[in-house]
Amino acid sequence: MSTATDLDVADPLAHFRERFVGAASDLVYFDGNSLGRPVAATAERLGTFVEQEWGGRLIRGWDERWMDLPTTLGDDLARICLGAAAGQTAIGDSTTVWLYKLMRAAVDHVARTEPSRTEIVIDTDNFPTDRYVAEGIAAERGLSLRWIEVDTSAGVTPEQLREVVGERTALVVLNHVAYRSAWLADAPELTRIAHDAGALVLWDLCHSAGAVEVELDAWDVDLAVGCSYKYLNGGPGSPAFGYVAERLQGELTQPIQGWMGHADPFLMGPGYTPAAGIRRFISGTPPILGMVAMQAMLELVEEAGIEAIRAKSVALTSYAVELADAHLPEVTLASPRDPARRGGHVTLHHDRMREVTARLWERDVIPDYRDPGGLRIGLSPLSTSFDEVERGIAAVAEALR
Amino acid sequence: MSTATDLDVADPLAHFRERFVGAASDLVYFDGNSLGRPVAATAERLGTFVEQEWGGRLIRGWDERWMDLPTTLGDDLARICLGAAAGQTAIGDSTTVWLYKLMRAAVDHVARTEPSRTEIVIDTDNFPTDRYVAEGIAAERGLSLRWIEVDTSAGVTPEQLREVVGERTALVVLNHVAYRSAWLADAPELTRIAHDAGALVLWDLCHSAGAVEVELDAWDVDLAVGCSYKYLNGGPGSPAFGYVAERLQGELTQPIQGWMGHADPFLMGPGYTPAAGIRRFISGTPPILGMVAMQAMLELVEEAGIEAIRAKSVALTSYAVELADAHLPEVTLASPRDPARRGGHVTLHHDRMREVTARLWERDVIPDYRDPGGLRIGLSPLSTSFDEVERGIAAVAEALR
Repeated sequence: MSTATDLDVADPLAHFRERFVGAASDLVYFDGNSLGRPVAATAERLGTFVEQEWGGRLIRGWDERWMDLPTTLGDDLARICLGAAAGQTAIGDSTTVWLYKLMRAAVDHVARTEPSRTEIVIDTDNFPTDRYVAEGIAAERGLSLRWIEVDTSAGVTPEQLREVVGERTALVVLNHVAYRSAWLADAPELTRIAHDAGALVLWDLCHSAGAVEVELDAWDVDLAVGCSYKYLNGGPGSPAFGYVAERLQGELTQPIQGWMGHADPFLMGPGYTPAAGIRRFISGTPPILGMVAMQAMLELVEEAGIEAIRAKSVALTSYAVELADAHLPEVTLASPRDPARRGGHVTLHHDRMREVTARLWERDVIPDYRDPGGLRIGLSPLSTSFDEVERGIAAVAEALR
Repeated sequence: MSTATDLDVADPLAHFRERFVGAASDLVYFDGNSLGRPVAATAERLGTFVEQEWGGRLIRGWDERWMDLPTTLGDDLARICLGAAAGQTAIGDSTTVWLYKLMRAAVDHVARTEPSRTEIVIDTDNFPTDRYVAEGIAAERGLSLRWIEVDTSAGVTPEQLREVVGERTALVVLNHVAYRSAWLADAPELTRIAHDAGALVLWDLCHSAGAVEVELDAWDVDLAVGCSYKYLNGGPGSPAFGYVAERLQGELTQPIQGWMGHADPFLMGPGYTPAAGIRRFISGTPPILGMVAMQAMLELVEEAGIEAIRAKSVALTSYAVELADAHLPEVTLASPRDPARRGGHVTLHHDRMREVTARLWERDVIPDYRDPGGLRIGLSPLSTSFDEVERGIAAVAEALR
């Protein structure tokens, strides 16, 4: 077994760690998958934005750069992290609002074209907000939810999806990486199964974007959403993103029809005409200030390359599993053991983990807790060292004693 | 006629001007009603937030402060600017998304309780996004829009509203200050008229919050929304706010049911149960970073007091009208002449104003242009001097020559 020091010395991305606020401290941060650390350049970027761009250009900033930022930054994100060509991704709103808009766009489209398709397929361990939004939409549109029951230590398999989709399926809503188990869904295969059944598919990339390779175009995905405050380090509550495949953009419309999704926002005339392309999925004034931090992170991700990031992510989670196997005999792995089926975090199960988490927090070891009995160890690849993993697992062992 | 110098010397709020980025420059900023200048403390506040709060507290920030920030900051805003008691205001989303959520909450409630009320009353010069959202909701809920035709140099009068409301009215949607004319609606009287007809009323405060006195509780308003990037200086695309009167909170639910509006967000269990109180109107993860800038401005507004701000606003717009009367004989006032019926901006009409605006921008005089032929002069009270008004109107005169 390699030591943490060996692994850190051999890590080609190790030098990125110093480019994050606070990474040099002794604190063990196992929650970069919930809220990524700030990139060190962020405060200065924000200061420059405030003094020069907002304060200097004032309202002219909208004409000069900001009006297009939701889609130019969306294109950057798409190129760097999503495997998507330009013109299909926009930044703004929260993930929840994007889920509402894109699920509605999908089911309203199907209601017009194939009204016999009245089911939304979703799994019982899908992220809560996705389930709540789907539940609300089903109620208001007279649709039903078809649940896939999943093991909270795993996730949706192709076999499970194949069993439930069919001629009544309008839309399939899945998480790319499960928030509890880190189950990495077989997105291309699951997308194919949904399409073979004639359904649309929406992927939630919150727990994968920036840590796992995503190929939305190659996988023929219809719709996707995700947040930017986890592995994209945009800051607490930073704007989310939505993706709509180009081939669907002309057919789909979303219900929150605001001025920024209008074909000519400053015409300000009577009647809403949706913009062409991805802009029709934008609603209100874009959150420009909230986009500054994620830009700094996207530059780091591009510099490192998503393949190298994924390789380090696999190495980090594999090391955590190895250490848990060796030093935490009382604990069960509640994540896939196969790294090819695992995203950027590892969940360790023990009945006392809620209490253990509280004790760890007191000692500046910061994992997350998720029912039932799950200690969630999120290992943001660019800001986490193998040494941090080792110290953190040692602290878990001590807290469990 | 007093000189600008006299007026600036006598202005009790003059010293606030130096607390904004760039206010000391020669640039004439007549668009603080579209995008307020940054408060000088903003860059440092953001830097401290990034380094200490986000970077230092990391995920713990949610437990410690951020989870409640949408409502604690909402309460601050309510107290300082909205005349509203605590527990009725939340910050987040865009104005457009709030409009969607609260209009839907209102009409869905009425559909359950009084299904014969099938009309949304709205005026033809209501802000475009409000009209587009209302149009979309009417289409999806099988309602109709009842339009009040208004003069673009004025706004909705009590007589006009009285004519169109009745037993079929579900909801009345009005702007407190009209974006084109600055018409300041008689909100208490219009609210009374809507209520007498048995309808709910939603006020859009985008162009009034922070510049004009608002008394949501005293006026018995049902619902309100507004943005924070105009007179609240929150930065481009900063989060908006929504207000729901306490007496209605138990009866209304909104359609974008996300985890942050759940009664117990971290239970993450099956099934959506709306939170009690204003939190049920929150949907996704709150945009915390986006709330930092407006906090700095709210402190200034509280320090100055909204009555003093309104008094200066009236003095500024009155001075602009006086100068226009004296020096711009070819121009028509497209705003109310009575300051009691006028918000924080003044619109001057001339057929050539589009071209004039472009010429002014080249000279660092920055008004806004709104069809038809409207040069919009927005005078943010705390950051604008009388000297700036004088120089700006002189530049308009020159550009018109």
